[in-house]
Amino acid sequence: MSALSLPEVSRRPLPAELLAALQTRFGAQFVTSHAQRLAHGRDESAYPDTLPDGVVYATTGKEVVDLVKLCADFAYPLVAWGAGTSLEGHLLPIAGGITLDLSQLNQILAIHPEDMTATVQAGVTREALNAALAHTGLFFPIDPGANATLGGMASTRASGTNAVRYGTMRDNVVNVTAVLANGEVVQTGQRARKSSAGYDLTRLLVGAEGTLGIITELTVKLYPQPEAISAAVVRFPSVSAAIATVIQTIQLGVPVARCELLDQLTIEAVNAHSQTTLEPAPTLFLEFHGSPAGVAEQVAQVQAVAQEAGGADFQWATRPEDRSKLWKARHHAYFACLQLRPGARAITTDVCVPISRLGECIEATLADVGPSGLMAPILGHVGDGNFHMLMLVDPAQPAEYSLAEAISARLVERALALEGTCTGEHGVGLHKMPYLEAEVGSAGLAAMRAIKHALDPKNILNPGKIVSWA
Amino acid sequence: MSALSLPEVSRRPLPAELLAALQTRFGAQFVTSHAQRLAHGRDESAYPDTLPDGVVYATTGKEVVDLVKLCADFAYPLVAWGAGTSLEGHLLPIAGGITLDLSQLNQILAIHPEDMTATVQAGVTREALNAALAHTGLFFPIDPGANATLGGMASTRASGTNAVRYGTMRDNVVNVTAVLANGEVVQTGQRARKSSAGYDLTRLLVGAEGTLGIITELTVKLYPQPEAISAAVVRFPSVSAAIATVIQTIQLGVPVARCELLDQLTIEAVNAHSQTTLEPAPTLFLEFHGSPAGVAEQVAQVQAVAQEAGGADFQWATRPEDRSKLWKARHHAYFACLQLRPGARAITTDVCVPISRLGECIEATLADVGPSGLMAPILGHVGDGNFHMLMLVDPAQPAEYSLAEAISARLVERALALEGTCTGEHGVGLHKMPYLEAEVGSAGLAAMRAIKHALDPKNILNPGKIVSWA
Repeated sequence: MSALSLPEVSRRPLPAELLAALQTRFGAQFVTSHAQRLAHGRDESAYPDTLPDGVVYATTGKEVVDLVKLCADFAYPLVAWGAGTSLEGHLLPIAGGITLDLSQLNQILAIHPEDMTATVQAGVTREALNAALAHTGLFFPIDPGANATLGGMASTRASGTNAVRYGTMRDNVVNVTAVLANGEVVQTGQRARKSSAGYDLTRLLVGAEGTLGIITELTVKLYPQPEAISAAVVRFPSVSAAIATVIQTIQLGVPVARCELLDQLTIEAVNAHSQTTLEPAPTLFLEFHGSPAGVAEQVAQVQAVAQEAGGADFQWATRPEDRSKLWKARHHAYFACLQLRPGARAITTDVCVPISRLGECIEATLADVGPSGLMAPILGHVGDGNFHMLMLVDPAQPAEYSLAEAISARLVERALALEGTCTGEHGVGLHKMPYLEAEVGSAGLAAMRAIKHALDPKNILNPGKIVSWA
Repeated sequence: MSALSLPEVSRRPLPAELLAALQTRFGAQFVTSHAQRLAHGRDESAYPDTLPDGVVYATTGKEVVDLVKLCADFAYPLVAWGAGTSLEGHLLPIAGGITLDLSQLNQILAIHPEDMTATVQAGVTREALNAALAHTGLFFPIDPGANATLGGMASTRASGTNAVRYGTMRDNVVNVTAVLANGEVVQTGQRARKSSAGYDLTRLLVGAEGTLGIITELTVKLYPQPEAISAAVVRFPSVSAAIATVIQTIQLGVPVARCELLDQLTIEAVNAHSQTTLEPAPTLFLEFHGSPAGVAEQVAQVQAVAQEAGGADFQWATRPEDRSKLWKARHHAYFACLQLRPGARAITTDVCVPISRLGECIEATLADVGPSGLMAPILGHVGDGNFHMLMLVDPAQPAEYSLAEAISARLVERALALEGTCTGEHGVGLHKMPYLEAEVGSAGLAAMRAIKHALDPKNILNPGKIVSWA
């Protein structure tokens, strides 16, 4: 039993002629086994399995071009796939189609230490990139949690824990190379760190979830590995007191690198899971990057601000082993939360609001969840105003899914009413499509649809995602 | 005599029926006097005067909607105008048309100190915004030199001296409200600091130079006014030595706020103009923002790096009056350079390359200019890899214009060959159109054209800019 129903889209069968052409062109790289199709027929969302008719494993950009051209010839859907970690049904071939697995397009093409950029193929994961950078003194900061591919992270405009300091994929992609729906290859920009040269095709493809082009390569910004890192954990009497601390920290210009809120229930989950003994209360996890003196100054500033807001039990650590112990609770929070209700499945939400509205948004959401009896820990990247709720539902109880969906819908509506967005970092996929018009208006939705029609006139690239065709 | 010839585009006369409709709808806000048309028939480029058929001064968003709808009814061109400070011919109504002057759309709509955002009408200038922010503890950092309007700065994806730390308009526009070519109004996003909600319409309109929509309002990011500011000037034996210092400074993670290079000729110009006694040599002007201790640390780090690269005569200042004295040379550089050759007109270039290629690009450009005998001081935002050359030509000598244009063309080709862009911050306008295909390829140009066709099917919004229609 799955939580969510798929939109009603007619599914095109794979034309026999295209099947033959795929077999001829891709040989063993084209697979149609049920196991492979199933492995590419689900992501981390709660939608039912939706299998592609076949999977092509590309190893070169040329293969991607050839595949797109074949699909274009038959006006047949094509879904690009990185690590399969997206959360909103982005990857499900609801109209039928071939899934293009890019995970073997995994070469690091160039590292330019002086320019602090790396150019990689789309299937390189963030961990693989950071492993390759280990000895350069540089690193790639964006960390959405999962070891996603950089192509996938670009396509969903991913961010994560340290976006508060380093920005999101929107800010950190210098250019992409993408195969458009007509099989043409575009490199959207050069390697300069800024440009005013025409429409921002880079930013158009970042976040387009594979609906406007298939990213095969990208250049990303790198940052100096911080000379010093310090971590801190501090507990608050209320969510609002924690948020007040975050707001003031940012207003003081403290360049905090991570700034995570775990609500009381999440802390309880963590204590049970990780044998920690944190007081069950809203708690901020912080990380500071800089020079040793700079980091010490940041910590002192935040400590003063936190104390004023009622923060207590301020623990901090600079040694790597102490830091990782301190952050263990945050890193294991997802699994810890799942353990709150063994056998449960987590429905993960994602909204982002102006930080001045964040306390109000979280408090109202907790009040909304309360009467439902649903366990729903909240944690988030509060420096950005972004947070998630994990609603723990029993997969055998359809009513719980409906309950969770209703709470989630109200949360999105609440976020929009507070000048926020229906998704801070997960993307639209299938699940957030109903909210996009409320967010960008009918004119905004029409503009997005016009762009889709212009760049993918046959509707072959991940059809039925972000905006409906008509 | 003007330097540059306009592209051959047939100019549509103003239909009598539209003229009547404009008079009816806009009364005294619609002007057709030669003086007003002339004032809106030139920007800071070297193109010949190109007058609109009339000027509408809008004071409300509704008026913009009505004007766009009228122009759409007659498929008649419309050019949005902010402060008229663009440099590449962006504002010239080459196909005829009405110019929409947005300078009276100048209300600051909201300042949200906790969220560090301001929402303004498009005609608000950056200086007006900063004046309004003076007592909030916040400021808007982007400074392209001219006191441009924020709508204009967004439309050209402007940046300037402190983009190295604070980013460009691309990074600092949270959302825009724009009137599309069909008269529909789109607000491209909410006020959350990040979003993954569909195609990035904000970034599509930022840098679109009024060709896809007319920005009437925008929300921008603000930053804490730095607690401490320090400025420094340091001289180098060569451009490359100065660049090496910049590269290492950035690799160390020093969050330098401004980082400007003035070449030897610029320093000579400044000495003559501002009665300074700087040694004539490539010189870096730096500014540091932070806490007092943080700024002191930054200065010490950069001083050490600069000395290693042969930097000499390191002067620094923290008191406002000393800082402004130190920066005087940079602030007056443009006028100082013009004085190198009284009566001359400056043709200003703008390229941006990866910083590792910057020394090579500047040295090769100096070598290229040398034999021409043209005076052409170079200065730039070198922390970003962005620089300008002011070629001083005698307006009475067409041959000098041709010479300058040829040097400028070679500079752009050089920048592109070095993985750079044809424009780092000025935009495409008319002048950089010939280079766009070399930069983004035929597929990239075709994609831009497809977007233009999709969003402005009658080609009424600033037609003939960025990409040609066919």
